[in-house]
Amino acid sequence: MTTAASLREKRELIDRSLADYLPEGDSKLAEAMRYAVLSGGKRFRPLLTLASGECFGVGSRDTLPFACAIELIHNYSLVHDDLPALDDDELRRGQPTCHAAFGEDIALLTGDALLTLAFEIMARAPVGDRSFPARAEIMADVARLSGAGGMIGGQLLDISLPPAEISREEFDTLILLKTGGLITASVRIGAALGGAGGDEMDAITRYGENLGLAFQTRDDILDAREDSHEAGTPRPNSVVLYGEEEAARRLNRFVDGALTALNDTGRKSEELRFLAEFLLVRDEG
Amino acid sequence: MTTAASLREKRELIDRSLADYLPEGDSKLAEAMRYAVLSGGKRFRPLLTLASGECFGVGSRDTLPFACAIELIHNYSLVHDDLPALDDDELRRGQPTCHAAFGEDIALLTGDALLTLAFEIMARAPVGDRSFPARAEIMADVARLSGAGGMIGGQLLDISLPPAEISREEFDTLILLKTGGLITASVRIGAALGGAGGDEMDAITRYGENLGLAFQTRDDILDAREDSHEAGTPRPNSVVLYGEEEAARRLNRFVDGALTALNDTGRKSEELRFLAEFLLVRDEG
Repeated sequence: MTTAASLREKRELIDRSLADYLPEGDSKLAEAMRYAVLSGGKRFRPLLTLASGECFGVGSRDTLPFACAIELIHNYSLVHDDLPALDDDELRRGQPTCHAAFGEDIALLTGDALLTLAFEIMARAPVGDRSFPARAEIMADVARLSGAGGMIGGQLLDISLPPAEISREEFDTLILLKTGGLITASVRIGAALGGAGGDEMDAITRYGENLGLAFQTRDDILDAREDSHEAGTPRPNSVVLYGEEEAARRLNRFVDGALTALNDTGRKSEELRFLAEFLLVRDEG
Repeated sequence: MTTAASLREKRELIDRSLADYLPEGDSKLAEAMRYAVLSGGKRFRPLLTLASGECFGVGSRDTLPFACAIELIHNYSLVHDDLPALDDDELRRGQPTCHAAFGEDIALLTGDALLTLAFEIMARAPVGDRSFPARAEIMADVARLSGAGGMIGGQLLDISLPPAEISREEFDTLILLKTGGLITASVRIGAALGGAGGDEMDAITRYGENLGLAFQTRDDILDAREDSHEAGTPRPNSVVLYGEEEAARRLNRFVDGALTALNDTGRKSEELRFLAEFLLVRDEG
């Protein structure tokens, strides 16, 4: 099986599993939760979790609950980000955003419920005969990287720092937190479940951080090319800050950094390599 | 030491511990998180956790992290509830609400960050030589009772069911979820850490459910007496639905139910008894 085919299979597994975890029934909340999560998305972060699990010898039966939790956290952050209080976006993935479809009140509760569900899934994940502290460590790590000192801290910088005056250092910190936080958490889970040692954990963390920087830079480049970003307050952006050429060089450098770090783990993973190289902008923009 | 004095000591311990757990520094997010949590509150829920821990033989060193997590979850729900998208309240505990003081964007992120921090604290709580599954079970239980099938589900009913048309059964379900969810979680934690058996857990759960019903009924009665509720969409309310006399009878019945359930645990707890009786409205309204 090619790497692309294997990733496609994993993505289908993730989609099925997410559909199973989400509540059913005719409540508006259940409906909005399913809408927010199941109406598309590349599943980049949960794929990273499954791939990093395999890289450290852990199968998808063990990584899947954590992978789904990461995707729910990602989706809660999108639902809240889209709200009028933040980005005020009406469209996501070509469809009405959660609040545009269900109202602001339901969207607010939907984000809260997705975040809560993410932690419930991790708390219930079967960890087999693996040592129990692994679960608690992973949950603490995910909370740290998605909380006030991680993703949410990055969102704060995103709305606080004026795009015209932000320094390059501040900008790198911003995307390292906002985008890098959850991506780093995604790959650290696989390593932690696989009982990775300190050096391996350091290397996979550097892989995640570089991947996060690359991911956001790529997004900024595609946004600039498409020139179709919806209304809302302007946010700091790689292309605006560095120009398109330098932004593209940065993207290459971050992907290289990720591949070097992957090499430093001492493990082979075609999928983690593929997911990094996938970010190099080709003709798709 | 009197029961009231012992609870006062516990409340101070909770306040100090919350102040330690919350992030410091001059970021608006850290400031807003501290503002939302440290500007008052009776700490009813974390007191329940400490008291139920003692009732089942567990000291505050072990219960305190979970008690603080519960209080953070309670406070995130208040911050989000107060937002214009939900209750649109400008005042809480006599002070500007989080969004009135910091803006809607920061308040939204503040709620998210408090919820995330709650789970991080539970994941890092030292559980000593207690069996590790206890922590995971507690975290899953807290998530369940505060999520889409618990507190958030109750909030959904609160904003969805028209106050004039709600049935009494729907109303009881509403407050059992919205207010009872987290209060029940609060007392179940102590029992779980103490290794309570099935019957004991059932009894303490009934205690929590009755206490939740009593708590909300009391709130509704005081609200009606003060007649000072701030603007915002009207919500279903015990006094409106039952009249003041019947609401007072219901309150007594729920407190009695809680005390009977407490008795059924087969354990003695002056504090849990006190916290239930405390809800009987005296002259303070």
